[in-house]
Amino acid sequence: MENEVEIILVEDNPNDMELALRALKKNNISNNIVVLGDGEQALDYLYGRDEFADTDQSVNPRLILLDLKLPKMDGLEVLKVIKSDPEKKMIPVVMLTSSKEESDVVESYRLGVNSYIVKPVDFDNFVEAIRNIGFYWLLMNECANCKKE
Amino acid sequence: MENEVEIILVEDNPNDMELALRALKKNNISNNIVVLGDGEQALDYLYGRDEFADTDQSVNPRLILLDLKLPKMDGLEVLKVIKSDPEKKMIPVVMLTSSKEESDVVESYRLGVNSYIVKPVDFDNFVEAIRNIGFYWLLMNECANCKKE
Repeated sequence: MENEVEIILVEDNPNDMELALRALKKNNISNNIVVLGDGEQALDYLYGRDEFADTDQSVNPRLILLDLKLPKMDGLEVLKVIKSDPEKKMIPVVMLTSSKEESDVVESYRLGVNSYIVKPVDFDNFVEAIRNIGFYWLLMNECANCKKE
Repeated sequence: MENEVEIILVEDNPNDMELALRALKKNNISNNIVVLGDGEQALDYLYGRDEFADTDQSVNPRLILLDLKLPKMDGLEVLKVIKSDPEKKMIPVVMLTSSKEESDVVESYRLGVNSYIVKPVDFDNFVEAIRNIGFYWLLMNECANCKKE
């Protein structure tokens, strides 16, 4: 069996994806990350469909970092599917987005998001934010049906 | 109008309450905390009932730290009420408990908890955990219908 995935990063913007991966690496939390580029792919991965039919879905990842604006299916739609599913809703979902729109924040909480983080624009602040997010959700938060340390 | 409450701490054990308050103070996040000793009181506060009839409920607190084992109404019951309410569910709820029981973790996520933290036994680790929880939820997380910085 392959290594359990700990973080799923759903991000379509190549610059932001690169930035997030660099920030995760800089903080030594780059081991078990899967990066997915749109909302449909995110759900295909989570449900082991199509190209992801071989992935092991018996153990939950510890965190999904979800962008809001995504091609094919946007972040709020993905969030809605995850949080309406009695099994998948166990997975912590953190919106990581450039939108500070109150309507986006409210709708995310309404759909059951675990946390909502606005991407810092400055690179150093972004790295620091990723460090804190990783530390909190990978090391402090207790996850359900997931790989325990 | 009084200062908006930022953290609601629901904890019945006087030692743990004292410890949490000391940890919050040590980290300079002791300004706007309300401490409540049982589950019923927590809901009375959130709904402005009885002794809390004068509290301003128009602005959400940024965080509820909720113990699991509580008198009168336990933490899971309180969580269920909050997360079944379209308005109150916007408030981030973090379970802060000594229980590592998988059934408690699973049930908390099933009911919609935002995060689940196991109380470190050692005081220094507890202070550090409170520091990280406070930093994450008060400074990084974007809240809904709450006081913005």
